[in-house]
Amino acid sequence: MDSIKGVKEPVESDVESFFSKAPPLKDCDKLFEKLKGFIDRVVRSSENGKPVRVVCVTSGGTTVPLEQRCVRYIDNFSSGNRGAASTEYFVKAGYAVIFLYRWGSCQPYCRYLPQDSFLDFFEIAEDSTIKGMCFCSMIILLMSESHDVVVKRSISEYRKAVEGGMLLKLPFTTIFEYLQILQMVALSMDCLKSLGMFYLAAAVSDFYVPWENMAKHKIQSAEGPLDMRLTQVPKMLSVMRKDWAPAAFCISFKLETDPDILLQKADTAMRKYGMHVVVANELATYKSEVTVVTRCGKTKVCSRAKDHDLEMELVDILVEQHSDYIKKFESGIK
Amino acid sequence: MDSIKGVKEPVESDVESFFSKAPPLKDCDKLFEKLKGFIDRVVRSSENGKPVRVVCVTSGGTTVPLEQRCVRYIDNFSSGNRGAASTEYFVKAGYAVIFLYRWGSCQPYCRYLPQDSFLDFFEIAEDSTIKGMCFCSMIILLMSESHDVVVKRSISEYRKAVEGGMLLKLPFTTIFEYLQILQMVALSMDCLKSLGMFYLAAAVSDFYVPWENMAKHKIQSAEGPLDMRLTQVPKMLSVMRKDWAPAAFCISFKLETDPDILLQKADTAMRKYGMHVVVANELATYKSEVTVVTRCGKTKVCSRAKDHDLEMELVDILVEQHSDYIKKFESGIK
Repeated sequence: MDSIKGVKEPVESDVESFFSKAPPLKDCDKLFEKLKGFIDRVVRSSENGKPVRVVCVTSGGTTVPLEQRCVRYIDNFSSGNRGAASTEYFVKAGYAVIFLYRWGSCQPYCRYLPQDSFLDFFEIAEDSTIKGMCFCSMIILLMSESHDVVVKRSISEYRKAVEGGMLLKLPFTTIFEYLQILQMVALSMDCLKSLGMFYLAAAVSDFYVPWENMAKHKIQSAEGPLDMRLTQVPKMLSVMRKDWAPAAFCISFKLETDPDILLQKADTAMRKYGMHVVVANELATYKSEVTVVTRCGKTKVCSRAKDHDLEMELVDILVEQHSDYIKKFESGIK
Repeated sequence: MDSIKGVKEPVESDVESFFSKAPPLKDCDKLFEKLKGFIDRVVRSSENGKPVRVVCVTSGGTTVPLEQRCVRYIDNFSSGNRGAASTEYFVKAGYAVIFLYRWGSCQPYCRYLPQDSFLDFFEIAEDSTIKGMCFCSMIILLMSESHDVVVKRSISEYRKAVEGGMLLKLPFTTIFEYLQILQMVALSMDCLKSLGMFYLAAAVSDFYVPWENMAKHKIQSAEGPLDMRLTQVPKMLSVMRKDWAPAAFCISFKLETDPDILLQKADTAMRKYGMHVVVANELATYKSEVTVVTRCGKTKVCSRAKDHDLEMELVDILVEQHSDYIKKFESGIK
């Protein structure tokens, strides 16, 4: 569809150096098997019917360790709500979702469960042997009736998605883990060609401390102020578009606090990294308003009420654009 | 008991400047009322019988915002397990506990609940109207039978602690919130004299960016590496001992990654800030081993098995030392 003209390529050695010097990914082989199994199942089920699309949703913020034996780290603010909500709507739209999320951030189908003080919602039933249910505990979640319906629906939808092979959850914490897993996912999804989508909602650090420059032990606080120099993280978006999964449909996010520069930065990001769509959002209003930026124009998406997820409409728009992209891709217009 | 000789006093203006320039604490008045109510109830119940001791347990890590409209922040690693477990043992020992914890970190009586993927443990019961229990949801936590017993006990102990007025939970996120609330708690606990205890297990940032030096908007990543200068956080431990709650029994924690400097640093901290006890732990072994450092010597506390909380023995030792301190305080030996 669109060529990646004008992409400022990251110096190849920066990218190579980032990966070669990163601490090795734990359980790398197991992760790869899990991922391969998930994608293979999707491909097989596609052969027997309508092609199944796969989206990799990234969600939550990455951390940047400041010490090798990590006590301190820089974190990026992100609740993970956007990614979690979007995942639910992608599953509803028939997509298989690889949910690459920050450990501890919001997860799909969990958004209506009580947060933080879970214990306040539990009640122990007196009789734990009712109707042959002695196989399980009778610890019961207390909720209002309306809330109850939502939570029950969430739990059964979650079960359906996981058991139906439509949801794979992969956690990360550091920027090193995030980019290593993202690369693995992208290379594994390359076989899906235009059926693959990347929905890159994670808040990824722009700066990091290269592993070999990092203090080995906890930084001592005895002597005056602390000066730190952070290196720029190589821009992996263009590497993804060029090398990892060139045929996939790519959506990235731009979050700014200053509305005056937001849309211009979104536009630049789209052209610079060859994104098909950039979703622009402001920190102050990100829950209630985003702007979908494409080469053809800008569309504002707003939530219509307090409890209305704007992700519902956002995912609708993106699914439609993905459909167009697939059609054009298949007819050879790139 | 011990005078605070040799304390390197933080320059008063550093402390004043930290508080006067910090962003104002949200819901400050409500928080104060809650705290006052809790301590008043304890004092009243003490008047009718055995004096109730109060411990403020701090737990989890503080964040340091890098931008005023915060997207990025520095965080300190801490699961909050130590503080949460210790709180349970302090309540068991008859203490009223003010649990000052990082939002989202581990909480007392929650340690045996499943983490991260809670949904995997829920089952929806078919019949939600059994035995008049239609007032509540029939969403049931699936657990093994042995696990079940522990969770049920946790839930009922939690209820008992909260309903009996023995547990008050106050959350924080940033270093500004942490120190502002700690000051408020300490000033409110001063009336308890030697019956008050501080168990400062939170991982508190040593460095911060003063609010007025902070970037107003998200730091832009366009131009090369990022240089940051962080200011030292004034050492509030000695201010607490000297001004906020001079008669309280104070325990601080020292975490290091380098075992060679750990005990020496713990000893220095004890003398420098006038702590009664410093608990020294190493990052690599903090779950299974700590050393209790006092002016009289060092005691190693180890967990005896995988599921054995070393906090049980640690709290026992500290309660005993607190009893000695109270006796000496009451007989006028300071």
